Amino acid sequence: MIILGLDPSLSCTGWGLIRSEGARISHIANGEIKTDPKAAMTARLDHLHAAVAAVIGQYAPDRAACEEVFLNTNPQSTLKLAQARGAVLAACGRHNLAVAEHAARLVKKSVVGTGRAEKPQVAAMVKVLLPGVVITGADAADALAVAIADAHLSPRA
Amino acid sequence: MIILGLDPSLSCTGWGLIRSEGARISHIANGEIKTDPKAAMTARLDHLHAAVAAVIGQYAPDRAACEEVFLNTNPQSTLKLAQARGAVLAACGRHNLAVAEHAARLVKKSVVGTGRAEKPQVAAMVKVLLPGVVITGADAADALAVAIADAHLSPRA
Repeated sequence: MIILGLDPSLSCTGWGLIRSEGARISHIANGEIKTDPKAAMTARLDHLHAAVAAVIGQYAPDRAACEEVFLNTNPQSTLKLAQARGAVLAACGRHNLAVAEHAARLVKKSVVGTGRAEKPQVAAMVKVLLPGVVITGADAADALAVAIADAHLSPRA
Repeated sequence: MIILGLDPSLSCTGWGLIRSEGARISHIANGEIKTDPKAAMTARLDHLHAAVAAVIGQYAPDRAACEEVFLNTNPQSTLKLAQARGAVLAACGRHNLAVAEHAARLVKKSVVGTGRAEKPQVAAMVKVLLPGVVITGADAADALAVAIADAHLSPRA
């Protein structure tokens, strides 16, 4: 079972792929998709869509997961994030890939053991749980954390 | 100059195409893209993306426009709307189509003459301004209104 974790955002969308076999997990690949802040919104969203579709096409994950969206108190930030998420989820739909949503608290609890963990703790535990992994950046670490949590939280097909 | 007006939403995205030549406008086509409320979010967003891309591919508009997003007081509604918008705008990006955004007030003012017009007034004026048009539905009427407003509001390339 190959699981794709996604951490969508307009400026930098993280992705991480793990293999889950019974209780064992291992790292496959991870990366970040960055968009040019100077480019048009349509071009940035298309880039996200195309790049996520390319990752799915290359690795053929069996399932995908992301965190439940964080509704920012700034509506403009929520709008940007949700638009990016729409482009990313549409790319998953293109490949008939279901995307489970997990609460951020549950992802942290699943990876670190507490729902109140800070980002550096999450990244450190991702490295422990996926020996040998080289993490592209903070958003890729978050995406791997979601994939790990999904392996724990979601009933296996 | 062919202008595509878009009224994105998850359940029903309206679209309308007009030709703008100098001060004259005429109707080309309009329609609505509906998604199955029972389908997965990923599948619905992919359907929007694919259907908008198909309209663009068929009619090759020179430019596109939509209303500035209405930030609903219900964050979940804003999230759904913005995700749909992300899928629709990504499809425009795929075809290198720029999308201008106009305030709802300006669209109404441009089409009806007052920024406080109600929806039925807008639809009635769209019929007056585009003689012979058969409007698919309320969301297609809104999309045609945005296209008409764009013809008035946007500087011509």
